[in-house]
Amino acid sequence: MTKFSLFKCYFKGKPSILVLVLFLSYSLHFGFCQDLMSGTPDSEYDEKALNTHRLDNLNLLLYTFLLILTVVTIWMFKHRRLRFLHETGLAVIYGLVVGAIIRYTGPITEPRVIPVVPALGTHYNHSVPPDVLWLQLSKRVSSKASATYLNNHTFVYTFRGEIDNTSLNEIDQKATFDPEVFFNLLLPPIIFHAAYSLKRKYFFKNLGAIFTFAFIGTTVTAFVTGSLIWGFIQIFPYLAKDFSFLDTLYFGAVISATDPVTILAIFSELHVDVNLYALVFGESVLNDAIAIVLTRAIQSYAEKYNPNHGGFEMVAFFQAVGEFLLIFTSSLILGSTLGIATALLTKFTRIRDFPLLETCLFVLMSYTTFLIAEATDLTGIVAVLFCGMCQAHYTYNNLSDDSRVRTKSFFELLNFLAENFIFSYIGVSMFTFPKHHFDVAFICISFIAVALGRAANIYPLSFLLNFGRKPKISRNFQHVLFFSGMRGAMAFALAIRNTMSKARQTFLTTTSLIVIGSVIFVGGSVTPLLTCFGIPVGVEEDPDHAVLPGTPHRGGDLTEGAIEPSRSSIQSEKSWLARIWGGFDTKYMKPLLTHSKPTLMETLPPCCLPVARMLTTSEQLNQGCGAHGDSDIELCIDDADSVRSSGPRAFASTQPGFQRVYFVNDRKMAVDDEDRHLFYPIVSPETLSCDSLGNKHLPGSSV
Amino acid sequence: MTKFSLFKCYFKGKPSILVLVLFLSYSLHFGFCQDLMSGTPDSEYDEKALNTHRLDNLNLLLYTFLLILTVVTIWMFKHRRLRFLHETGLAVIYGLVVGAIIRYTGPITEPRVIPVVPALGTHYNHSVPPDVLWLQLSKRVSSKASATYLNNHTFVYTFRGEIDNTSLNEIDQKATFDPEVFFNLLLPPIIFHAAYSLKRKYFFKNLGAIFTFAFIGTTVTAFVTGSLIWGFIQIFPYLAKDFSFLDTLYFGAVISATDPVTILAIFSELHVDVNLYALVFGESVLNDAIAIVLTRAIQSYAEKYNPNHGGFEMVAFFQAVGEFLLIFTSSLILGSTLGIATALLTKFTRIRDFPLLETCLFVLMSYTTFLIAEATDLTGIVAVLFCGMCQAHYTYNNLSDDSRVRTKSFFELLNFLAENFIFSYIGVSMFTFPKHHFDVAFICISFIAVALGRAANIYPLSFLLNFGRKPKISRNFQHVLFFSGMRGAMAFALAIRNTMSKARQTFLTTTSLIVIGSVIFVGGSVTPLLTCFGIPVGVEEDPDHAVLPGTPHRGGDLTEGAIEPSRSSIQSEKSWLARIWGGFDTKYMKPLLTHSKPTLMETLPPCCLPVARMLTTSEQLNQGCGAHGDSDIELCIDDADSVRSSGPRAFASTQPGFQRVYFVNDRKMAVDDEDRHLFYPIVSPETLSCDSLGNKHLPGSSV
Repeated sequence: MTKFSLFKCYFKGKPSILVLVLFLSYSLHFGFCQDLMSGTPDSEYDEKALNTHRLDNLNLLLYTFLLILTVVTIWMFKHRRLRFLHETGLAVIYGLVVGAIIRYTGPITEPRVIPVVPALGTHYNHSVPPDVLWLQLSKRVSSKASATYLNNHTFVYTFRGEIDNTSLNEIDQKATFDPEVFFNLLLPPIIFHAAYSLKRKYFFKNLGAIFTFAFIGTTVTAFVTGSLIWGFIQIFPYLAKDFSFLDTLYFGAVISATDPVTILAIFSELHVDVNLYALVFGESVLNDAIAIVLTRAIQSYAEKYNPNHGGFEMVAFFQAVGEFLLIFTSSLILGSTLGIATALLTKFTRIRDFPLLETCLFVLMSYTTFLIAEATDLTGIVAVLFCGMCQAHYTYNNLSDDSRVRTKSFFELLNFLAENFIFSYIGVSMFTFPKHHFDVAFICISFIAVALGRAANIYPLSFLLNFGRKPKISRNFQHVLFFSGMRGAMAFALAIRNTMSKARQTFLTTTSLIVIGSVIFVGGSVTPLLTCFGIPVGVEEDPDHAVLPGTPHRGGDLTEGAIEPSRSSIQSEKSWLARIWGGFDTKYMKPLLTHSKPTLMETLPPCCLPVARMLTTSEQLNQGCGAHGDSDIELCIDDADSVRSSGPRAFASTQPGFQRVYFVNDRKMAVDDEDRHLFYPIVSPETLSCDSLGNKHLPGSSV
Repeated sequence: MTKFSLFKCYFKGKPSILVLVLFLSYSLHFGFCQDLMSGTPDSEYDEKALNTHRLDNLNLLLYTFLLILTVVTIWMFKHRRLRFLHETGLAVIYGLVVGAIIRYTGPITEPRVIPVVPALGTHYNHSVPPDVLWLQLSKRVSSKASATYLNNHTFVYTFRGEIDNTSLNEIDQKATFDPEVFFNLLLPPIIFHAAYSLKRKYFFKNLGAIFTFAFIGTTVTAFVTGSLIWGFIQIFPYLAKDFSFLDTLYFGAVISATDPVTILAIFSELHVDVNLYALVFGESVLNDAIAIVLTRAIQSYAEKYNPNHGGFEMVAFFQAVGEFLLIFTSSLILGSTLGIATALLTKFTRIRDFPLLETCLFVLMSYTTFLIAEATDLTGIVAVLFCGMCQAHYTYNNLSDDSRVRTKSFFELLNFLAENFIFSYIGVSMFTFPKHHFDVAFICISFIAVALGRAANIYPLSFLLNFGRKPKISRNFQHVLFFSGMRGAMAFALAIRNTMSKARQTFLTTTSLIVIGSVIFVGGSVTPLLTCFGIPVGVEEDPDHAVLPGTPHRGGDLTEGAIEPSRSSIQSEKSWLARIWGGFDTKYMKPLLTHSKPTLMETLPPCCLPVARMLTTSEQLNQGCGAHGDSDIELCIDDADSVRSSGPRAFASTQPGFQRVYFVNDRKMAVDDEDRHLFYPIVSPETLSCDSLGNKHLPGSSV
């Protein structure tokens, strides 16, 4: 059979196909014989698009390369047990090196720039530059023959920023990103991960101290830092004219956001005392939220402030304070509401049969929290923080095993990448970001003021806290708290957000330098500092573990250091706030939002039984032994451990056979909510109340 | 103790602190008494930044909300076993609804626009509009008293696009994203996931057919579609003047990228015949790559084309063809190289001790592939596709258990989110994207031409393939292949990339409509179509399973349908290409790049022993029974299963106790590489060669 007859046989009896083939060959033939190009310069546009695309990719490639370098180096460091530099410090250093290379050697891509003026007869009555320009090129400008296309069209240009020095503009687009990227894409997973992996047990135990440091302490730091800077710069007249008092206060608020990353990574590697860990972590997580709301409040004061009036304005001040409180609580409520909504969705639907969908829902709901908050002028970071806590506390219990692993590993990965990306960016942008403004005097002043501001937070507040606190915060712990106030991603993201004026550009430069300095130098000196202050390392994570039969009693290490957890003081270790909340949580919130026992049918008054029955799932009633027990012990595993133990092994600790020592407080029904939960699968609440004699029991043996 | 004495006691003996406190109170007092505002309108800038931020967040919120809606609805559909609409279809429909609401009811945010003209004395000699404008506002324009700030500054504006109709501009920024987002952020994970979860076993079995459909077929489709459209539009003179032949060819290439998502999700839910699945999947995955390179080649032809010459230019044509081949193979080599680099990194370092770092390295290396390719003017999609295949084939074997779970679940999640995001966006952008250009005639012509173009790919090529192919592609299979050519994310991303000219805007509109039509209507009719064409569903994934003792013989179902897998034809089932590659892979690539046996010490000639020893790890020598066996069976699990079975259970299938039936071809040493690997842990290669009598054995019983 020849090829032709093959085709003939194929087309046999199909005249319509033959017609089509003929039409096709006609089109192909005449199409190619035509003038192939139409009038529009599509291919030039294509090239333009391609160039933009290539530049974008080079930017991304740069940071991906930096991240790979950081990952490989940090692996080598971990492999050789070197601890003098944390991965974020490495990321910054690599960033600085690459930034310098780009700045001084990189090819300069010259954009096609033309200066423009408003068209004749245009009136513009705003005090900020226009958002959009419409450009019409006339013949007199573009005289080239092929450019006739340009003359008939209007092109749109959008606002990008302001330039001081036109010669600097050439590096404008090099290795920089829109600051919105940090706020909308990189910060939310970092904050969410912090909340999702919070050691809630110790967080609740130290609730009072954490809240004091975070709320009062951050405000104090912001005001002290801001005021000191303002005071100092009065010595330098050239500086004083650039910065108003509100400017320095704003800077104080920006720079008071501390970053837990580096120090906590080292803490958890060294197994530092858990209460110290909880204090540092809790404070840093919350103070990001406070700092961001504080900057908002200061901005709002500045907006309401009447410049003609002069001096301090009481009304505007109280409005700003009111706004601060309103924004914070609204964000908190929004975040918790959406967290609770996710818990309800995962509890009352069978979406857990499809873990991928469940995980997506979880991720999307959490991100929505951030977006709703930001879109309604609340603070997304606060919302996502409390949403993360609710997700960890309630939703996590309802998730399928698969989704637990997925969500944890997903956020861990995102957190790691986002964090190291930001630190790389801080390094690179020191050289490439066009809006830097170096001022040695201001930078020196800031370093001093920041340290003093931190001291004004930690030492007086610890002093006051120690009056009402049973396990006192020792002097050495206070020093560690002081040093742990490193600045990081949040301060940088706040500073880079608005770099329009010279004051703000100076703030950005100073913030970058403070972040770099603290990450590299403070981060590197944590281990010697801990030794120097005699902070116990290698402490068991859970003091309760210490009395497990067979394991050596390690509680002793703890007392030497700082906080003395005597058996009799366990009740007072928990703040009254934590105790009230714990009782409410165990009795109403957990039964409503998770599959845990006791059910609402047991905890609600009998009159509410029909409602309670409706809100109790059959899983909840038939719940077996610890199959879906509380998540806290899993979430409590510190970062270094979770790196190794998440995945299949992550569930080992909730296996029914797992035994935990348990302290029951004398006639205290509402015991620590975290413990209680772990306790449930093994001992029923009835048994618990009979047994509460203040002695410790092995649950396995006591039943 | 009064409060005052408390403070006194605190400051006792610390005069330096007292001085500081005094300084601080001075600063606070005088700071607040000063004029708080400096000259720069920072608070107005802040507000401007805040507004941009709010708008960005509303946009993101919209899509997140749509995704949540889609997730919840699709869960309900799955729960009730409704199959008439796939999740992507749902995403599109929700997108359309919301897009319409935004378009017709949403508030219109009026940007501050002013028309501008070039400053006096400016010369501009390019044929494309300038990239950047520098605006200087003079007094005559902004007369407001507070706006003096504007007069002393230069503002930068960047190019955004072209407008035809100025009244349309008001929805310019509503719910739209930079097209770069699709290419740089959303497509790479989708393509990577496709490659990473490819059923490589069946892919290699059908390598010849897949390559034919992908390479030749896509080119045929592109040219036929393009030519037919050009032919048809000659009937409409008003259309003919807007579109050159190269334009329609470009469109043909854009629209020839098919999307496997919807159809494959349904296939795997219904357990459609694996060979059909492999054909559809393999073809769609590869043809995205071909289509994107083809559009590049057509653009390059257009650039080289001399408009003064007219007609077909042979030199430019062959240059374009050469470029096509060069770009494709370079991208392929780049992707494979980076995949292999990752494999080597994970094999020869102990980074697997830190799974988080390992996962990061894996993700970053894979993304780097895309970025390097794009930055060097190659095609990232092709590179990431082959990188994904290498990662699945080699690197996966070296990963720790934890990283396996992490990487799989991470990409699965990203893929799901990215895909549904794109489909939502297609829906919303139908109404909100300002660059749409509806032309009913062109749209109708395109629908017809696209269908004919697809037919011109499948039917003739299947006809030709069936000459050399033993398990023939039956007529019904051909029909399914024809219908499975739905258009999706890739076509849309290509079309939205450049919407400068009217022709391109028409292409975008038409592409969007074709995508929407095919996802909703074809996607909805797959199940009835399969029944109608008598395609067997509920087929065992692995035909070999069918002869496992104890399970019913299901091979019969398969023969009725289409491909007859008779025992004697197994050898010819594999293409010669697959056989050569399989041999090379098993002997050299896998021993070099993974921890699998045989080691290079066994496969390389004795003279290379020192090198071979260097390249063999101790893990490889001490490898036990299947602990880190091949990944393919895990990767082979189809989507529907993996939703349920990934996580801790995902490793069940590689347990040593797991038995698989195995066919050994008559005196064929290089058996199918996928099978062989599964075989390894149980039978050593020596045993295999002794036993190869062409009979089937249960490995467990044969040793």
